Amino acid sequence: MCSVNPGHCTLIKYIFLLLIIIHLDLNTAESVWPLPQIVILSSERYQLKPQSFSFGYRRYLDTKHSCSVLDAAFKRYFSILFPGYTYANLITFSVFTLTISLDRHDCEGYPNQDSSERYKLNVFAGQASLNAETVWGSLRGLETFSQLVYQDDFGSYYINKTEIEDYPQFNYRGILLDTSRHYLPVQAILKTLDAMAYSKFNVFHWHLVDDPSFPYQSHKFPDLSNKGAFHPVTHIYTQSDVRRVISYARMRGIRVLPEFDSPGHTKSWGKGQSELLTPCYRGGTPSGTFGPVNPTLPSTYQFMASLLKEVASVFPDPYIHLGGDEVDFSCWRSNPYIRAFMHKMGFGLDFSKLEAFYIEKIVNITSVLRKTSIVWQDVFDYHERRKFLSVVEVWKQGCYLCEVRRVVKAGLRVILASPWYLDQPGPTHNWARYYNVWPLAFKGTEKQKSLVIGGEVCLWGEYIDATNLSPRLWPRASAAAERLWSNERQTSCVERAFPRLQEFRCKLLRRGIQAEPLYVGHCKHEYQSV
Amino acid sequence: MCSVNPGHCTLIKYIFLLLIIIHLDLNTAESVWPLPQIVILSSERYQLKPQSFSFGYRRYLDTKHSCSVLDAAFKRYFSILFPGYTYANLITFSVFTLTISLDRHDCEGYPNQDSSERYKLNVFAGQASLNAETVWGSLRGLETFSQLVYQDDFGSYYINKTEIEDYPQFNYRGILLDTSRHYLPVQAILKTLDAMAYSKFNVFHWHLVDDPSFPYQSHKFPDLSNKGAFHPVTHIYTQSDVRRVISYARMRGIRVLPEFDSPGHTKSWGKGQSELLTPCYRGGTPSGTFGPVNPTLPSTYQFMASLLKEVASVFPDPYIHLGGDEVDFSCWRSNPYIRAFMHKMGFGLDFSKLEAFYIEKIVNITSVLRKTSIVWQDVFDYHERRKFLSVVEVWKQGCYLCEVRRVVKAGLRVILASPWYLDQPGPTHNWARYYNVWPLAFKGTEKQKSLVIGGEVCLWGEYIDATNLSPRLWPRASAAAERLWSNERQTSCVERAFPRLQEFRCKLLRRGIQAEPLYVGHCKHEYQSV
Repeated sequence: MCSVNPGHCTLIKYIFLLLIIIHLDLNTAESVWPLPQIVILSSERYQLKPQSFSFGYRRYLDTKHSCSVLDAAFKRYFSILFPGYTYANLITFSVFTLTISLDRHDCEGYPNQDSSERYKLNVFAGQASLNAETVWGSLRGLETFSQLVYQDDFGSYYINKTEIEDYPQFNYRGILLDTSRHYLPVQAILKTLDAMAYSKFNVFHWHLVDDPSFPYQSHKFPDLSNKGAFHPVTHIYTQSDVRRVISYARMRGIRVLPEFDSPGHTKSWGKGQSELLTPCYRGGTPSGTFGPVNPTLPSTYQFMASLLKEVASVFPDPYIHLGGDEVDFSCWRSNPYIRAFMHKMGFGLDFSKLEAFYIEKIVNITSVLRKTSIVWQDVFDYHERRKFLSVVEVWKQGCYLCEVRRVVKAGLRVILASPWYLDQPGPTHNWARYYNVWPLAFKGTEKQKSLVIGGEVCLWGEYIDATNLSPRLWPRASAAAERLWSNERQTSCVERAFPRLQEFRCKLLRRGIQAEPLYVGHCKHEYQSV
Repeated sequence: MCSVNPGHCTLIKYIFLLLIIIHLDLNTAESVWPLPQIVILSSERYQLKPQSFSFGYRRYLDTKHSCSVLDAAFKRYFSILFPGYTYANLITFSVFTLTISLDRHDCEGYPNQDSSERYKLNVFAGQASLNAETVWGSLRGLETFSQLVYQDDFGSYYINKTEIEDYPQFNYRGILLDTSRHYLPVQAILKTLDAMAYSKFNVFHWHLVDDPSFPYQSHKFPDLSNKGAFHPVTHIYTQSDVRRVISYARMRGIRVLPEFDSPGHTKSWGKGQSELLTPCYRGGTPSGTFGPVNPTLPSTYQFMASLLKEVASVFPDPYIHLGGDEVDFSCWRSNPYIRAFMHKMGFGLDFSKLEAFYIEKIVNITSVLRKTSIVWQDVFDYHERRKFLSVVEVWKQGCYLCEVRRVVKAGLRVILASPWYLDQPGPTHNWARYYNVWPLAFKGTEKQKSLVIGGEVCLWGEYIDATNLSPRLWPRASAAAERLWSNERQTSCVERAFPRLQEFRCKLLRRGIQAEPLYVGHCKHEYQSV
């Protein structure tokens, strides 16, 4: 009945942790998830009252020049700090103020791969100060602050004297949702973005389209969703939906990384874009079925350039995910025109060369649009000319760190997804499996290791939709979140993490996130089912 | 990527099914889940309009003598038939009436193990008649009727001309919820009762208390929940909560079977009832820990008699589940007083004799209260005197049908739970595993087989609470529901069941049940996450 796998909790590590977190108290710093890099905590505590608590700006941000991202965050976090209360910012006499200062006033932009998320949080008598280089870092600090506040048995709010210096271990901390195998209502995506912010995830990898359906409503190619979505009206993402998701994510310091996976995984594309897919042949005649994108026709690249141009303008992130995984060659092989093209190009019978030919062209299109492309590891694995690649996402099981090592040795950047395929259900206590991962546990130079830009939790959609998305993701994804944010040496012990993650899961429930239980027990505020 | 296990879908069975279901149409009879015993369907269809649809009574039930269970059911099913509409029963001119007749006017009672659930449903021009022996059978018929109604693409409602004769294969079709390992808010239980009715389950087996917590608020022994619940106010079931659950269940033709598991699984009992549990010893002195109920003290039986008397009066069902599983003998063995008692009773070193001694006394207490007791298979397995037993619930894995056979050969009744432990997560497509079960697939006489009174889906609470209860149960429990209700020969083919279960799952979504997807695809009305 034991729910946690034995971790490696040596005495040395334990003492190390104790040195970092002085006056350990589960109500306070230990309960911040993911664990901040440096915490100095005192047992001195201050009472907070919703009636006399306020947020304030310092430096660069006078009243004329406030920051919409932070203004909105103040409202959100006020209701999180004091459930049932709304932030009015009309307090005449503030007893406790959290004052924010930013080194750079970048409130109008979007977070990106290079955005600093570093912050310093100081809580002392009657006030707190939060300094960050960017607005995105200040959002992380606000999240930490909100987790430091606790209620005593009589309902009073407290926060302990605390000094925190914090920054993420990895810059890319993503969650993939798949809206093709099942349609996810926008509301389910927004709810996921909320929960992501609570665990300090910063990339929503939107696997928008795939074989089963094409829910993205393109303004250039409306037939793609008209004919390729499960339903052309109720099961699509309009431009307004997409803008809403991007804006909601931005307000939480989360990037939206769109994926338009090709040349495989494109069956639904073919319904609204004729001659895009390869006609498969049987016995010398077309069989009526279609395979991957047809890489031999100039029209394919005109279409892809046009679609990607739209995508590049709709999604502000400097990265686009181009997919490139699991291309089935059998249809290409059956098609005499494809074979003729292969012959003409001197590819012999090696269809991976044809795939490389295609991907290279698509990557070039993306580069012209000034976007950095990410591809699944297949592209790296099967192709010789790797120089045209930038970022490779490692997803296959087995020795995934061997693959990570190969990619960084080739000088390319890596995102690791293999150990975090959460769509496969399992007992909740396998959260420890997601926790006991260290993306840098391979032999390599410092420079090579710096090429590992982060990791990603993937929630593929075969068996997932809005009915089970949240309990499947949370709190297991949070285990990965700590791995990607926190210092590995301070967070390598599953047994120590367990009560902290239980506590954090209760916080998620309190914030309305349908996070499933880790084991027997209870939260003060249980999830109220609808 | 294939999501269903190959079933046995021979041509003969297929033809047999076709003979039963004439003019097959997924919009109609095939989509009734669980599949009725006999369906004769026509392609002739009638339009239904919310404005001119009504329910009516015939025979025994004039206006003076209506039936509160049915009146409430009419309201529920009207909103299910016509989402967004409320049943006012003020229709002056009814175009389509579903008229109910009951052979017995038993609206005031509770369903029990012997209640007939048989019904006949006839849909023909402008009306439908539903005849049942009991009000509980008419509820099953209403459910079937509600599943026969469908909407065309323009939103109009239709029902086809249909004749159905239906009855359950097994009288006991249960779902176990565990409210000790996690507290389930009453609302989550009520929602489950709703969903149970949609799949024609008829027993809510309430595993109320166990080691971790004692949430049942006893009026005789309030300290049991005051000290043994996770929280004495927020994490308990008051008498009013229990009455609400029983009443809500009754309105849906569902029995509430309370379980008070002992002598093991009682750690939480000891907090509020001193001297109930056995003090464990180490090195000749009490270790401070406690084991199972102390079966050597007269006070134990006085307490149990008093508690069970309360339980017997609070829960109207003629059955009480007494547990009796997984008793750990090590604590008994350590205790010198227990050993002395063993010696005095001539039990030697066989602690299973002590357990039998205890259980027999508890069963006798229950008999005096005129209740039939159910025990877990452990009691049957380890004890020689089996005559005092009535109903045995088989739960262990392995050759569970061997165990079923042993129990019925001993002349006892059986409930089968082993193949339906749904708390263990797995890919949703393992629904087929729950479907491919046949409780009577053992060698035995007709009389022996008739002792298998049914089966039960168990959702143990280690990893389950209100956050994941619904998607973990539904639609997988519905697979078991069809096995327990329908004719096995007509429902032995997983491939044929798959689209029907998909369709039924969409109906569950439409009714607000958070039922997880079976595989890639969509429903017209997706679940809207909160």
